[in-house]
Amino acid sequence: MLSGETQIRVRYAETDRMGLLHHANYLVFFEQARTDLLRSLGTNYRDLEDQGFFLVITKVEVKYKRPAHYDDLLTIRTTVVKTSPVRLEHKYEVFGPTGELCCEGGTTLACVNGDGKIQAMPAWLSQAK
Amino acid sequence: MLSGETQIRVRYAETDRMGLLHHANYLVFFEQARTDLLRSLGTNYRDLEDQGFFLVITKVEVKYKRPAHYDDLLTIRTTVVKTSPVRLEHKYEVFGPTGELCCEGGTTLACVNGDGKIQAMPAWLSQAK
Amino acid sequence: MLSGETQIRVRYAETDRMGLLHHANYLVFFEQARTDLLRSLGTNYRDLEDQGFFLVITKVEVKYKRPAHYDDLLTIRTTVVKTSPVRLEHKYEVFGPTGELCCEGGTTLACVNGDGKIQAMPAWLSQAK
Amino acid sequence: MLSGETQIRVRYAETDRMGLLHHANYLVFFEQARTDLLRSLGTNYRDLEDQGFFLVITKVEVKYKRPAHYDDLLTIRTTVVKTSPVRLEHKYEVFGPTGELCCEGGTTLACVNGDGKIQAMPAWLSQAK
Repeated sequence: MLSGETQIRVRYAETDRMGLLHHANYLVFFEQARTDLLRSLGTNYRDLEDQGFFLVITKVEVKYKRPAHYDDLLTIRTTVVKTSPVRLEHKYEVFGPTGELCCEGGTTLACVNGDGKIQAMPAWLSQAK
Repeated sequence: MLSGETQIRVRYAETDRMGLLHHANYLVFFEQARTDLLRSLGTNYRDLEDQGFFLVITKVEVKYKRPAHYDDLLTIRTTVVKTSPVRLEHKYEVFGPTGELCCEGGTTLACVNGDGKIQAMPAWLSQAK
Repeated sequence: MLSGETQIRVRYAETDRMGLLHHANYLVFFEQARTDLLRSLGTNYRDLEDQGFFLVITKVEVKYKRPAHYDDLLTIRTTVVKTSPVRLEHKYEVFGPTGELCCEGGTTLACVNGDGKIQAMPAWLSQAK
Repeated sequence: MLSGETQIRVRYAETDRMGLLHHANYLVFFEQARTDLLRSLGTNYRDLEDQGFFLVITKVEVKYKRPAHYDDLLTIRTTVVKTSPVRLEHKYEVFGPTGELCCEGGTTLACVNGDGKIQAMPAWLSQAK
């Protein structure tokens, strides 16, 4: 299965009153991680949108295991776990600086056109390995 | 079951390149919605933290049904679906300006102390109705 | 001069490790405040964009006086201080829950078309009082 | 004068309805840039806070020159332009992928203790070159 890793350092603005990475930001990190994975295939999501293919999120699940802190350099391992002509499913594991698992997540993306109608994504994407 | 409604207007900064509310912001809206629900009980989450009770999120699930747009006035219906001495489960339904369901979600919160150790929350909270 | 007030409660996600409203969020609040002012004229910024008039920010200045805290209900007083056919200048004063001045700011907006070229804004907007 | 460069790629969540980097995010990027500069001195801001020295922002100015787009890899050149025992002034220049100047900014930071009172910062910081 297609997978990759990306590293993101926790910004001050991404922490909250508890001094920890605010939980909503994991979704932003997942998004960066899966676009980095796409980049590793030699393309990028911006071009995909410019060609009329929009990947919209239809479902997300996150399990928060351990907190991440300001300035932590996190490693996100992203794996494509299921594909169809119109859907992509990713899972994500977020590891802290000492390798501990901070968070696990999963997303489902659907491919739509500029009017929001479901359409098949390019075959190279749904068949990427 | 305890439930309530809160209204939030989508800010420009909360939209993205597709012109829609970015999906991570729903988690921020859920958080505001459940603190508004707490406020309706005559208290607020800030006081709870100041008394040493921190509610940390351990799980979130979101199903995105229809997009929300810039300047839309959204209505979020929040319901406490399960409680225990140390955990709270909420569900959320987000409705757009014409009453359409945009998004459904669920969160699990655990009560911890200032060191991050699980502790029982005040009884009035776990037993609120 | 045209002016108005808007109230915004500080969200948990908008605080940072110091427990205070993160300084970047004041720009988001200014934006909400000036769109609320526009709404008080009987129109809204979304319609303005849909008619091909985009107000882009060219300059911002902020002086931070006192911190704002989680859950504070802030009052933002917004005033149009200068207008021209292609530019709008606003100033903002942000007051905390006991009326103390937390922050002062100013922005300059330019009106552009969909291609980013400067164009005159509708006369009712540049001449609003 | 002490200066350095940092690179930041624009995330999808950081764009807005115009398809451009939302203007408030430049402040977040400035913050990351100046903490990277601190890191290049062999320390980091987290340690500084843990030692009781908090750098709070008292003033910011930004001039927006050209828009930055989704997925652009921006280069931020950060320079310490003035120091005193209790204050640090930085300027920032943000360059787009083809070297064009997108944005210029300046910030003033004051050093405070955990109670928010002004205090002298460590000499190695105010005298860094």
